[in-house]
Amino acid sequence: MNRREPLRVAVIGTGRMGADHVRRIDRVVSGARVTAVVDIDAERAKAVAAGVDGCTAHTDPAAAMAAADVDAVLVASSGPAHEAALLTAFEHDLPVLCEKPLTPDAASALRVMEAEQALGHRRVQVGFMRRYDTEYVRLKSLLETGRLGRPLMLHNRHRNVSSPPFFTSAMLISDSVAHEVDATRWLLGHEITAVTVLRPTPSAGAPEGLTDPQFVVLETDGGALSDVEIFVNCGFGYQVQAEVVCERGTARIGDGHALVTHTAGRWGGTITQDWTERFAQAYDDEIQTWVDTTRRGEITGPSTWDGYAAAAVCEAGVRALEAGGRVEVDLVEKPALYR
Amino acid sequence: MNRREPLRVAVIGTGRMGADHVRRIDRVVSGARVTAVVDIDAERAKAVAAGVDGCTAHTDPAAAMAAADVDAVLVASSGPAHEAALLTAFEHDLPVLCEKPLTPDAASALRVMEAEQALGHRRVQVGFMRRYDTEYVRLKSLLETGRLGRPLMLHNRHRNVSSPPFFTSAMLISDSVAHEVDATRWLLGHEITAVTVLRPTPSAGAPEGLTDPQFVVLETDGGALSDVEIFVNCGFGYQVQAEVVCERGTARIGDGHALVTHTAGRWGGTITQDWTERFAQAYDDEIQTWVDTTRRGEITGPSTWDGYAAAAVCEAGVRALEAGGRVEVDLVEKPALYR
Amino acid sequence: MNRREPLRVAVIGTGRMGADHVRRIDRVVSGARVTAVVDIDAERAKAVAAGVDGCTAHTDPAAAMAAADVDAVLVASSGPAHEAALLTAFEHDLPVLCEKPLTPDAASALRVMEAEQALGHRRVQVGFMRRYDTEYVRLKSLLETGRLGRPLMLHNRHRNVSSPPFFTSAMLISDSVAHEVDATRWLLGHEITAVTVLRPTPSAGAPEGLTDPQFVVLETDGGALSDVEIFVNCGFGYQVQAEVVCERGTARIGDGHALVTHTAGRWGGTITQDWTERFAQAYDDEIQTWVDTTRRGEITGPSTWDGYAAAAVCEAGVRALEAGGRVEVDLVEKPALYR
Amino acid sequence: MNRREPLRVAVIGTGRMGADHVRRIDRVVSGARVTAVVDIDAERAKAVAAGVDGCTAHTDPAAAMAAADVDAVLVASSGPAHEAALLTAFEHDLPVLCEKPLTPDAASALRVMEAEQALGHRRVQVGFMRRYDTEYVRLKSLLETGRLGRPLMLHNRHRNVSSPPFFTSAMLISDSVAHEVDATRWLLGHEITAVTVLRPTPSAGAPEGLTDPQFVVLETDGGALSDVEIFVNCGFGYQVQAEVVCERGTARIGDGHALVTHTAGRWGGTITQDWTERFAQAYDDEIQTWVDTTRRGEITGPSTWDGYAAAAVCEAGVRALEAGGRVEVDLVEKPALYR
Repeated sequence: MNRREPLRVAVIGTGRMGADHVRRIDRVVSGARVTAVVDIDAERAKAVAAGVDGCTAHTDPAAAMAAADVDAVLVASSGPAHEAALLTAFEHDLPVLCEKPLTPDAASALRVMEAEQALGHRRVQVGFMRRYDTEYVRLKSLLETGRLGRPLMLHNRHRNVSSPPFFTSAMLISDSVAHEVDATRWLLGHEITAVTVLRPTPSAGAPEGLTDPQFVVLETDGGALSDVEIFVNCGFGYQVQAEVVCERGTARIGDGHALVTHTAGRWGGTITQDWTERFAQAYDDEIQTWVDTTRRGEITGPSTWDGYAAAAVCEAGVRALEAGGRVEVDLVEKPALYR
Repeated sequence: MNRREPLRVAVIGTGRMGADHVRRIDRVVSGARVTAVVDIDAERAKAVAAGVDGCTAHTDPAAAMAAADVDAVLVASSGPAHEAALLTAFEHDLPVLCEKPLTPDAASALRVMEAEQALGHRRVQVGFMRRYDTEYVRLKSLLETGRLGRPLMLHNRHRNVSSPPFFTSAMLISDSVAHEVDATRWLLGHEITAVTVLRPTPSAGAPEGLTDPQFVVLETDGGALSDVEIFVNCGFGYQVQAEVVCERGTARIGDGHALVTHTAGRWGGTITQDWTERFAQAYDDEIQTWVDTTRRGEITGPSTWDGYAAAAVCEAGVRALEAGGRVEVDLVEKPALYR
Repeated sequence: MNRREPLRVAVIGTGRMGADHVRRIDRVVSGARVTAVVDIDAERAKAVAAGVDGCTAHTDPAAAMAAADVDAVLVASSGPAHEAALLTAFEHDLPVLCEKPLTPDAASALRVMEAEQALGHRRVQVGFMRRYDTEYVRLKSLLETGRLGRPLMLHNRHRNVSSPPFFTSAMLISDSVAHEVDATRWLLGHEITAVTVLRPTPSAGAPEGLTDPQFVVLETDGGALSDVEIFVNCGFGYQVQAEVVCERGTARIGDGHALVTHTAGRWGGTITQDWTERFAQAYDDEIQTWVDTTRRGEITGPSTWDGYAAAAVCEAGVRALEAGGRVEVDLVEKPALYR
Repeated sequence: MNRREPLRVAVIGTGRMGADHVRRIDRVVSGARVTAVVDIDAERAKAVAAGVDGCTAHTDPAAAMAAADVDAVLVASSGPAHEAALLTAFEHDLPVLCEKPLTPDAASALRVMEAEQALGHRRVQVGFMRRYDTEYVRLKSLLETGRLGRPLMLHNRHRNVSSPPFFTSAMLISDSVAHEVDATRWLLGHEITAVTVLRPTPSAGAPEGLTDPQFVVLETDGGALSDVEIFVNCGFGYQVQAEVVCERGTARIGDGHALVTHTAGRWGGTITQDWTERFAQAYDDEIQTWVDTTRRGEITGPSTWDGYAAAAVCEAGVRALEAGGRVEVDLVEKPALYR
């Protein structure tokens, strides 16, 4: 593909997750655009396509992938539909971002893996998005420095306010703990060798018949343990916490928004060293907001009046610094344009 | 301008801040592109332009703004150059994002304000980017609910590791406290009526002759006080903290990454209710990374093997849940493609 | 006095504070007992004395101090009564713990100081109890190590839920900020050279006519600044916070119960190294509770059944460790004595 | 016994723990004194007794308990010696505080329990001192309010810097996890029905041959799970943490010194409402220090000079409040007595 032009993406599945990815590629991500959307519900596909410039709607993934203006595929359909979509993408040798799970069971996943190997090169990225979360990334980086020594245990908490009506006891494992399964493998660099699931008496807040919470213990081929509290009807909030216990200290994420370590008689975190790091998000949002409003022909941010008032106050401040004492600020009357 | 096409931006000034804005518009922000850069240093302008598709280099802001492919202007030159750039933009009726300060003193700011009024509509957004910082935005939103009552005092801390060589005692006010001046006006919705600057004995860590730290007290027309510790050679990190003390509680930002309130016998914060909120950044980064690597012809994220391994572990987990006890996980040998 | 025998204390004033000190000497502190209480309200003095073994009630401080069984005096009467009580104690050369303020104004304090000097040795300890608070003590110790460099600024917050009916605007200074005045002098080791008091618009939660909150700036002969937010009708809680800003870092107390430092790119605190430190209070309370209940002829703590159950579980645990897998715990039926 | 007189205690065992209890009863606890100490090492018993007024030294517990001046017994000898000491105490019908473990195994604990039942009334309090720790007490109180609903899981962390040379893998259970065994039973009000012990690869920081860390899962007759990370050579500090997960929220202790709850979309803790609560420890220490120094004929606390300086500053502050502006503080020269 032309590396200067935006990546042209077909999105398979336009449910909650798929539609959100369409919006993300269209409005948030730079360097890509959505040229096709696919859904077995033709109306839904059309509605989503209508909101995106130059995007066509399809009901058949194969038709979309065969189109000339598709460079890559994002699979966000339901799990059982993934295998077929992936194999079709392989036929067109298209790169695929496939939402987790890759497929619903190990046997179908094996088939996909064999097909990709037959292709001779990697084409699939699986949607384990915790690997891109700032906190997880920091935790992984810290582990890789080796400063804490070898990881021995990983304690995970995964809590949701409530589970959707179709959720089954097995889905607490296959849909929710699946994230901790990948996080354990990725953070520790180990494969998992055994699983134990313990079942406390279900919460009164869980739907009748749902085994919630569960407590899962994963053993790894590196000799580490990873335990997971999964509680999908905790009622009070969404929480994802992880604490790695290593030979020389621990590191924890998920209590607020910082990586907290415990080492050598000290607990704490790091302090940003620079405003570019601290305010990167603010600069991004400032420019994006200005671009968006300007394209709409509006001006909404801090005004010339705000610039003038700040200049007048700072002038008074410099006089106060130099002369000592209290200096009054005189502003002209606020013009109508800025009210 | 055509609202479907990207906004075409001329960036005036390609120093540290200007070059960073060029990168941001080119790589981070969606819906805009840089079509012209301006710098009195022609080599620097050329170097920056060379990195951006379809971007021309100029030494004269007026020439850049006169170009046919410019819809808007971002002014990031040094403060004394702002007035001329703004007035030129007004001649072309171009929208401007002007880095702070608007101009270096109140008199020139007044002239800009008068010129914009003569134009009859707002054209300027000033670069007070704290108004776009997530923490400040949350603090402002909380104040606007009225739940804490009227704000009485605002305590600000503004610390830098060290100041650049050209920094003067007056610049602690006009360059650094300028941020708190705007934050005070914006958060409280008050104008500032008087300033007092107190000078403790300078830190041994400050350059000879620099009055650092300083302690600034701002009084407002709403009867509130805003105090600012400004310490630009604190040595240990970059910190921006603000605590608003209201009639029924306080709210604080800048200690880590959360808004902490103290009300009615309780301190604490809120818990995210949903994974879309908690992991929004991760999804954005996941897709952006996939787009970037795919455009380079690479695949680097979680692989099919990772998807298969997760499926196999979850299958074992579901069996462990259903049968009780410990269930071993069997994986096929890892294929060469995924090593 | 006989160093083996308990110190015999006369307590002058049996209001809220005085009565609490009587209780404290009688029930909490070891090595002292209250042998006399004094109050102008004879009934109140009698009521307090009645609760303490071998304690007499008086209305005249001089009479109490002249008694043979008094080794020391604790002055907890109202401020205006302190001078006379102190001078009387000096006549008997008795050591005095005098609640703050020493006296209500500088002139009377000077007279007391001259009388003590005439005595030729120190007899007075003033009740600035923050110097004994664990957090303040840790902060002072840290400052004394010199690790953070010279102190430059001290930020203090002092908040009460509400003020008593008799509280005046001047009392926010003389009664409340008096604590920060001493804390500033003690922590920094400086004398205070100037005071400025700023008055934001009073809170709607403050009684009509009370200037609350106030913002006080103290300057010291060591070139440091100490600012105090005093807000005695904040409504939500009692908070005493202090942050010292030094040349190489800051240290803060009062947010929960730990000393938090910011130095060299890291924030955080220390971790206890030993159970004797972590659980010192628990051991004290355990033994005190056992002594108290045993003297009343009762046994209320963890029972023999609790000891047996723990032994049985640990036995099973050791078997589980050695054999692997899950080991069930068998307990005998719980005897009636322990139900 | 006479309830007005101090409780006269015989302490059995004068090792680290026993000697510390002797000091505690002698110097910290009010209402009790040590009248006899017992140790098989006669020299050690004599050395400890020599430091306490009116205390005799013994090598035979029975002899000490038979003495006329013993009202109660504190057993702090090694575990295997507990059973004999307890049975002897029962013969004299003396109340006993017995350090944990009650006895080293369930069979001997059963014999003690039977002997106490034969006595017909409770005589033993077991030394599970976590039940007296402020944080555990708050956690228990919160659970008892029922506000969080039924407890479902309890996550415990128990970390020591390093283990003593004689520590065995089994002692991680019987000596260390024994605390969590009692804490689980007490906090949840459940009996434990099964134990599983998992063994990650030992830390490189653990002595050769010691299975450290271990991960213990306790199941209860109330359907709850309690998991314990026990890691006695973590190297960085002593940490005891507990998080109870209930049907409507969680509560956690051990991260610093506060009880933190997560409920209904909010995390946080409570704010002290009163200075008596916040500064109780400071008042206790202030008075105790004054008593101790006064009995030694010294005066070391805040001086009359400190009282005078505070009065002078507050006077200036009140003038600053009333007149506005900055008011200088004039102090007399500091007299020699206070230097």
